[in-house]
Amino acid sequence: MANTRDVAVGVVGGGPAGLLLSYLLNLQGVETLVLEARSRAHVEQRVRAGVCEHPTVELLRGIGVGARMDAQGMMHHGFSLRFDGRDHRIPLTELTGKCTTVYGQQEVVKDLVHAHEEKGLPIEFEVADVALHDLDSERPRITYTDAGGVRRELRCLAVAGCDGAHGVSRATLAATRPRVYTHDYPYAWLAVLARTPPVHGELIYANHERGFVLHSIRSHEVTQLYLQIDPREEVTDWPDDRVWEECRLRLTAEGFGLREGPLLEKSIAPMRSVVVEPMQYGRLFLAGDAAHIVPPTGAKGMNLAVADVRRLAYALRRLVRHSDPRPVTRYSESCLERVWQVQHFSALMTGLLHRDPAADDFARKLQLARLHNLTTSRAAATSLAEHYVGLPFD
Amino acid sequence: MANTRDVAVGVVGGGPAGLLLSYLLNLQGVETLVLEARSRAHVEQRVRAGVCEHPTVELLRGIGVGARMDAQGMMHHGFSLRFDGRDHRIPLTELTGKCTTVYGQQEVVKDLVHAHEEKGLPIEFEVADVALHDLDSERPRITYTDAGGVRRELRCLAVAGCDGAHGVSRATLAATRPRVYTHDYPYAWLAVLARTPPVHGELIYANHERGFVLHSIRSHEVTQLYLQIDPREEVTDWPDDRVWEECRLRLTAEGFGLREGPLLEKSIAPMRSVVVEPMQYGRLFLAGDAAHIVPPTGAKGMNLAVADVRRLAYALRRLVRHSDPRPVTRYSESCLERVWQVQHFSALMTGLLHRDPAADDFARKLQLARLHNLTTSRAAATSLAEHYVGLPFD
Repeated sequence: MANTRDVAVGVVGGGPAGLLLSYLLNLQGVETLVLEARSRAHVEQRVRAGVCEHPTVELLRGIGVGARMDAQGMMHHGFSLRFDGRDHRIPLTELTGKCTTVYGQQEVVKDLVHAHEEKGLPIEFEVADVALHDLDSERPRITYTDAGGVRRELRCLAVAGCDGAHGVSRATLAATRPRVYTHDYPYAWLAVLARTPPVHGELIYANHERGFVLHSIRSHEVTQLYLQIDPREEVTDWPDDRVWEECRLRLTAEGFGLREGPLLEKSIAPMRSVVVEPMQYGRLFLAGDAAHIVPPTGAKGMNLAVADVRRLAYALRRLVRHSDPRPVTRYSESCLERVWQVQHFSALMTGLLHRDPAADDFARKLQLARLHNLTTSRAAATSLAEHYVGLPFD
Repeated sequence: MANTRDVAVGVVGGGPAGLLLSYLLNLQGVETLVLEARSRAHVEQRVRAGVCEHPTVELLRGIGVGARMDAQGMMHHGFSLRFDGRDHRIPLTELTGKCTTVYGQQEVVKDLVHAHEEKGLPIEFEVADVALHDLDSERPRITYTDAGGVRRELRCLAVAGCDGAHGVSRATLAATRPRVYTHDYPYAWLAVLARTPPVHGELIYANHERGFVLHSIRSHEVTQLYLQIDPREEVTDWPDDRVWEECRLRLTAEGFGLREGPLLEKSIAPMRSVVVEPMQYGRLFLAGDAAHIVPPTGAKGMNLAVADVRRLAYALRRLVRHSDPRPVTRYSESCLERVWQVQHFSALMTGLLHRDPAADDFARKLQLARLHNLTTSRAAATSLAEHYVGLPFD
């Protein structure tokens, strides 16, 4: 069949997980093909979180795709917890020796697409009808329709499922009845992009009786705000005036004046935790959002994907180049400890900062005591900070 | 009226809070009278928790009532978290430079009663019908019936309410409508005393699917066990065989063999958090359980009482000897930060270790992730340990 191709690893999904995996594998002499349903322009513009943890930055830099991140990313050496109308800074670098880099996920994607291009590594955008076959054999196949409308088949040694929570990989694995752990948080986030200079050089996580708000930074001219809202609300419930009014109320602090500006974008993000165990079936291996979802509070989504992919690249190299199946056999198990640590941290940050509509006065006082503890105990702050900057890869 | 007496401070309650307050005040030249409803034998035998935190030990030693504690108490330099069938030690002294001392609350009471006796300081046991009057004046009164059945009146400058959660002091203050924060935990403890040598030299806090158990130490011959039970259960639901069977199952670990022995005592302790705010009204000042209850998991009840009393002794000395009302005015406020830190810690330990009947699989995995974090991060372990050994008095 002329439309059939062989490749060592078929990578389903061209987001940060799939692109990074593909690039890491090629650096180690393992041939890949990345299949992405959307257009190149779409994935390069798709805005997601933008806090790269220290190990992510080190990894991207180490493989030579960190130049633009180093030039344009903003290193953050701390962040503020705002409660009781005051800022309490968590000095990340002082506590851990590490910092985070604010650099948009779409920028990482651009850098990885560009790196593929430079090396002539294939990415097929705008593919459709992707289906996975023979996953329980040693020669799994992927069938799909390419951007030109031609039906194609990819024969591989392994399939990497990097196509997110709603992709074909998770759905295919779900048919094998893995355990799926889920938790829905009783709030959602309204993400707002405003053309106004950020009034603070670091992120502010504000705990307020009216709800959480995160004051974040997109660029010198653009502020990103995330507001806790009722999960039943819609974007139309939040006209610009209401957004600014809530931001002003929730961000109240001495000497802090929010500068209003035109709102460029509004969208709603649900708050959910999901873990699929195991993250693999036969020769299909999930990485990133395909395997797990974290609530956005800790900004860990892409970072956790990077950690998965690093392990998967190693395991697949051992399989493909050394015919050693042991690391792929242990892939899921090797990822899950970090996955649960990150779920723990993300749930902790979420619980610490949001106004739980079901919480009674006792729970609210306990939340404030936990915040106080973080701002009065160096050990407590360090424990939070070491998760925030990213647990080291082992 | 012949049966009327004047004293600077009337202390209602002869548990550790009342006795320590009385002793501290007398050391500073402030005259007291302690009124206790029970007999001396009763309070000296009344078994409660027995973990003295570092600041408690330092304080008792500092005022000269620590000799027997130093001779008979057991210094503990760590404890074990047991989960997944393995022990994970939290090395308290290595992490904080401090340790705890296992020494029964009733022993502290004995030492304080003895110290009063030696100095000829008055304690009236077996009083009845205690009532508080004129608290919003500068000359409050306490009326009561003494052990001989004589009605008496005590005129003072201040009343210290150290008579626990069910005493007259809390009830009197409650009539002034303070805020009361409460939380009921969905479990209770069955406390069991067994005549069998403890099989481990440090405390073991075991998290198990069947529920929590604490393996503790009373003496070289007597083991204290605390088992999580359903709060609707009664002692009669727990015959000896069932107690041992559950302990064996929940304490399973390699190389660990529980030695059975006769059960000497069984009782049930509810798990509850309570905070009364403010802890004072007029010239009535609550301390210890009269003002707040913590669940027993962190063994903080007596220790928190000691912290209150230390502040109250200072404030009352300023009032009585220097006519300075400012410290008593701020008494409640000055206590509450620690009170909430201890509630936070007690709730954290409780949530970390118990099997919540309402928890789903996700919550259970998160609990294990939190336990793992404590055993893999020095900062996280230090943060827990500094609460466990006791936050420093400021």
